[in-house]
Amino acid sequence: MTLDLDPRNTARLTISCADRKGIVAAVSQFLHHHGANIIHSDQHSTDPQGGQFFMRMEFHLDGLDLARDQFERAFQKEVAGPFEMTWKVWYTAQPKRMGIMISKYDHCFLDLLVRKRRGELDVEIPLVISNHDTLRGDAEMFGVPFTHVAVTRANKAEAEAEQARLFAEVGVDFVVLARYMQILSGDLLQALGVPVINIHHSFLPAFIGANPYRAAFERGVKLVGATAHYVTEELDAGPIIEQDVARVTHRETPETLMRLGRDVERQVLARAVKAHVEDRVLVSGNKTVVF
Amino acid sequence: MTLDLDPRNTARLTISCADRKGIVAAVSQFLHHHGANIIHSDQHSTDPQGGQFFMRMEFHLDGLDLARDQFERAFQKEVAGPFEMTWKVWYTAQPKRMGIMISKYDHCFLDLLVRKRRGELDVEIPLVISNHDTLRGDAEMFGVPFTHVAVTRANKAEAEAEQARLFAEVGVDFVVLARYMQILSGDLLQALGVPVINIHHSFLPAFIGANPYRAAFERGVKLVGATAHYVTEELDAGPIIEQDVARVTHRETPETLMRLGRDVERQVLARAVKAHVEDRVLVSGNKTVVF
Amino acid sequence: MTLDLDPRNTARLTISCADRKGIVAAVSQFLHHHGANIIHSDQHSTDPQGGQFFMRMEFHLDGLDLARDQFERAFQKEVAGPFEMTWKVWYTAQPKRMGIMISKYDHCFLDLLVRKRRGELDVEIPLVISNHDTLRGDAEMFGVPFTHVAVTRANKAEAEAEQARLFAEVGVDFVVLARYMQILSGDLLQALGVPVINIHHSFLPAFIGANPYRAAFERGVKLVGATAHYVTEELDAGPIIEQDVARVTHRETPETLMRLGRDVERQVLARAVKAHVEDRVLVSGNKTVVF
Amino acid sequence: MTLDLDPRNTARLTISCADRKGIVAAVSQFLHHHGANIIHSDQHSTDPQGGQFFMRMEFHLDGLDLARDQFERAFQKEVAGPFEMTWKVWYTAQPKRMGIMISKYDHCFLDLLVRKRRGELDVEIPLVISNHDTLRGDAEMFGVPFTHVAVTRANKAEAEAEQARLFAEVGVDFVVLARYMQILSGDLLQALGVPVINIHHSFLPAFIGANPYRAAFERGVKLVGATAHYVTEELDAGPIIEQDVARVTHRETPETLMRLGRDVERQVLARAVKAHVEDRVLVSGNKTVVF
Repeated sequence: MTLDLDPRNTARLTISCADRKGIVAAVSQFLHHHGANIIHSDQHSTDPQGGQFFMRMEFHLDGLDLARDQFERAFQKEVAGPFEMTWKVWYTAQPKRMGIMISKYDHCFLDLLVRKRRGELDVEIPLVISNHDTLRGDAEMFGVPFTHVAVTRANKAEAEAEQARLFAEVGVDFVVLARYMQILSGDLLQALGVPVINIHHSFLPAFIGANPYRAAFERGVKLVGATAHYVTEELDAGPIIEQDVARVTHRETPETLMRLGRDVERQVLARAVKAHVEDRVLVSGNKTVVF
Repeated sequence: MTLDLDPRNTARLTISCADRKGIVAAVSQFLHHHGANIIHSDQHSTDPQGGQFFMRMEFHLDGLDLARDQFERAFQKEVAGPFEMTWKVWYTAQPKRMGIMISKYDHCFLDLLVRKRRGELDVEIPLVISNHDTLRGDAEMFGVPFTHVAVTRANKAEAEAEQARLFAEVGVDFVVLARYMQILSGDLLQALGVPVINIHHSFLPAFIGANPYRAAFERGVKLVGATAHYVTEELDAGPIIEQDVARVTHRETPETLMRLGRDVERQVLARAVKAHVEDRVLVSGNKTVVF
Repeated sequence: MTLDLDPRNTARLTISCADRKGIVAAVSQFLHHHGANIIHSDQHSTDPQGGQFFMRMEFHLDGLDLARDQFERAFQKEVAGPFEMTWKVWYTAQPKRMGIMISKYDHCFLDLLVRKRRGELDVEIPLVISNHDTLRGDAEMFGVPFTHVAVTRANKAEAEAEQARLFAEVGVDFVVLARYMQILSGDLLQALGVPVINIHHSFLPAFIGANPYRAAFERGVKLVGATAHYVTEELDAGPIIEQDVARVTHRETPETLMRLGRDVERQVLARAVKAHVEDRVLVSGNKTVVF
Repeated sequence: MTLDLDPRNTARLTISCADRKGIVAAVSQFLHHHGANIIHSDQHSTDPQGGQFFMRMEFHLDGLDLARDQFERAFQKEVAGPFEMTWKVWYTAQPKRMGIMISKYDHCFLDLLVRKRRGELDVEIPLVISNHDTLRGDAEMFGVPFTHVAVTRANKAEAEAEQARLFAEVGVDFVVLARYMQILSGDLLQALGVPVINIHHSFLPAFIGANPYRAAFERGVKLVGATAHYVTEELDAGPIIEQDVARVTHRETPETLMRLGRDVERQVLARAVKAHVEDRVLVSGNKTVVF
């Protein structure tokens, strides 16, 4: 083992399959045999008897005796095929390309821009699409391409087609709805063809819908929360990646509740995006495994 | 000011009324004039323009120049009447009498018994009523009177009448449902005539209903919570006193979720009961002010 | 009471004095008598027998029958003088002027800039002073004046004199050390003559000193924290305004510990600054009362 | 795979050794080959280049083709020996025997007794030793053997010898200091020969020493904490298992600080004990890995 391994020369292998004996042995044997140096390994089994198995391994490529395409062919043939695995490998040398969709709220958007700029999020941001022109200045301040695509009831289908086309043109690995105040149609989700992460401004499943802070205020809750989840066709029902809450008191107005909630939104979305970027989130039905 | 004031010789005055100028001045003038030594004072206004005003004051009785009944008559006449206040005074020398209703779950019940025994909760427990005989041993272990009142679909009305009669016989200042697995009818609530505190095993309003941990497991949430609230006729909709959550992961089973949740339930119920016992909770419509 | 009160036309009165009977009555009488409409009122007594009394009141100026200087003279004469109060009044129409000192770390600095820009912090930022030129670009991006004052062991006294002069020139109501990596001398603190808030990257008093994340890593703690405090001559010993922590595990490296810690630093500093800006923090010896 | 596996018929294998390639492959191969059905697997590497490797595996014994002693001999010979592992295996059918040492504080003690009684902690409690007779009644209430061993400055060595003898007589797998107010000598730790868990009433390393709540009160902290750690000869410096905090305000007295702190102590100790009982805690120098 050499002491000068390049920390960026690693790969992350994520796997899910029906649980059965010998999976861990097969995967670790394969990597061991080909000279990969495993740095992290996580696994989860929903139920050892007939459940689903999930695994995430991060390993150095330095000692690997296979080129990328050789690795992928060999792994599919020797391990993934026999165990009928759903799997992928991500090479960390390549930052993920993150598309962003926004409306008028800037708190989550600015937070992502600041974290990207500070090097906390290893991403490129090839495009921001907004249905309002409000935050163009913020995007420009951070040197991020911004396009305004107006969405009305009348033009929704064309607007969505345009959004899909724009993202396809630049190429994105995933899309973040940083308080995008429109519902994405199933057609758009399919056209995008990449994971879409949304931040919902409540502790789902409480206060589903359009005005959760008002609803929270009226119910007199003592905590407000936020939920980051993958978007599915069913509104607010996609797999939850991360949630958190902040304590509030009877002193809050709808405005202070919202302000406290926005701090939670920022944090929750940032954690979810970071976990996604690092290939830590595996989807399991309508839930997630977050390693 | 003498240095030997008896810390138990205090009173707590709680007030609510329509907000207007001069309330604080009137109350503090009155207490000051009659020699009361204010220890704590909290106030809250839902909206300075036409809102509701809430106040809690704790003061020593030592310097007071009025006897209890004189105090109450004078305060009503000079302050509470003119401002149309809803108010009460509680003398701390007298521990509150706490009735408890339980079924088969022991975690909240044992927690209350331990806290009472340790002197953390300044209460007397004149009676525990259960619809099962399961926890009789626990009650006896702690020397607390226990009565089993079976409740069936057929006898519910009579059972509730019996429960109300039993509590009335011993006298209770409030009742705690420490995971009592029955819905109290409006008739029983009225017959009890005292505040009733319930612990709901979820972060209300999420997972209203009978099996919230199963629902939380199936939704794949990343936090489980508990909610203590006053009971009203509308199920799970009464004023929330306290809420909290615990972080969970994809590793939880419904069983571990429940175990983690029960630690939250205990804590949340204990805090809510302590706040109620210390007259810190004022009801404001379907919400609470917790000083 | 009119319904069109200007929400910015309010004042905040903060008071501290030796505790004795009649303070609340005197203050509220005075305000009531002169037509002030109290919106919020908080009070705290460290010990009703011979302790210190603290009060914060926010009231509308609309109904007040006194001009600013009349109010101040009358309050001093009728209330503050007799009770020997330390007090001040702040008019919310006037945003506080916040000086910032930084070195090379940008996370707290960018967070303050973003919050100011979003209107979360009601401040003006007339000047940022840094002992490095590193973050000039960030300041310029947000349109905030930035001056580089190099500090070496040799020139420290002159550099500090220059810093004091620069802040005096523009005028600041308080100064925030947003991870400024130099110790301020007593002379500088005195020359500034305004409160100085520091963010320490640990849960004080644990890990006092220069490299708390390394120390936390080596001690194997399960939580990392941050502490915002007023700066006094004694290092890391000033009155604590706010603290918080984040959970960490054995998986952290010194780098991930630092990254998690920085999220806490940002939040804690932002909350402390907001509380200070809203006149919620009263100093009580080496502690704070935070209303 | 049969569907009627006995959930209590499992074993937990914990391993630590110098990190090198092939460990995971070797262990999982071995278990797979002998028919063990892995339920959970966790691993951690402090540093993939020359660090320490830790692993915890839980597996069903049902399919295993080796008897207990065969398993242990074979694993030592085929896997543990070649990799120079420190390892052990625990069979879950056998509850761990927990010794308890206490003084006069009952909150942690009662919490452990309640959790044991409720089945939350899978332990037997063969003996409680106290240096005071105060809590005998609590022990008896829960049917747990209690012995009073008075400890004075003069008899400390003999008292400790007696304590070690008493625990040896009944046999314990670990000892919990549930607010035992004496320092254990190195001799006693050696004589016990099992892990000893202590609950310290502060967020270590802040407020080391005898009266942390008083120190926290005087420092004006905004959070109080508790730390559960393994006991070593150096006071308050052993490997930390679990920590947590509770938010406090300027309103706390030393008494309320202590009361809030005790709720944290209980929770932190309970979580640490549960983790230990489930073989989730591996010691790594002066730190822990908690799976």
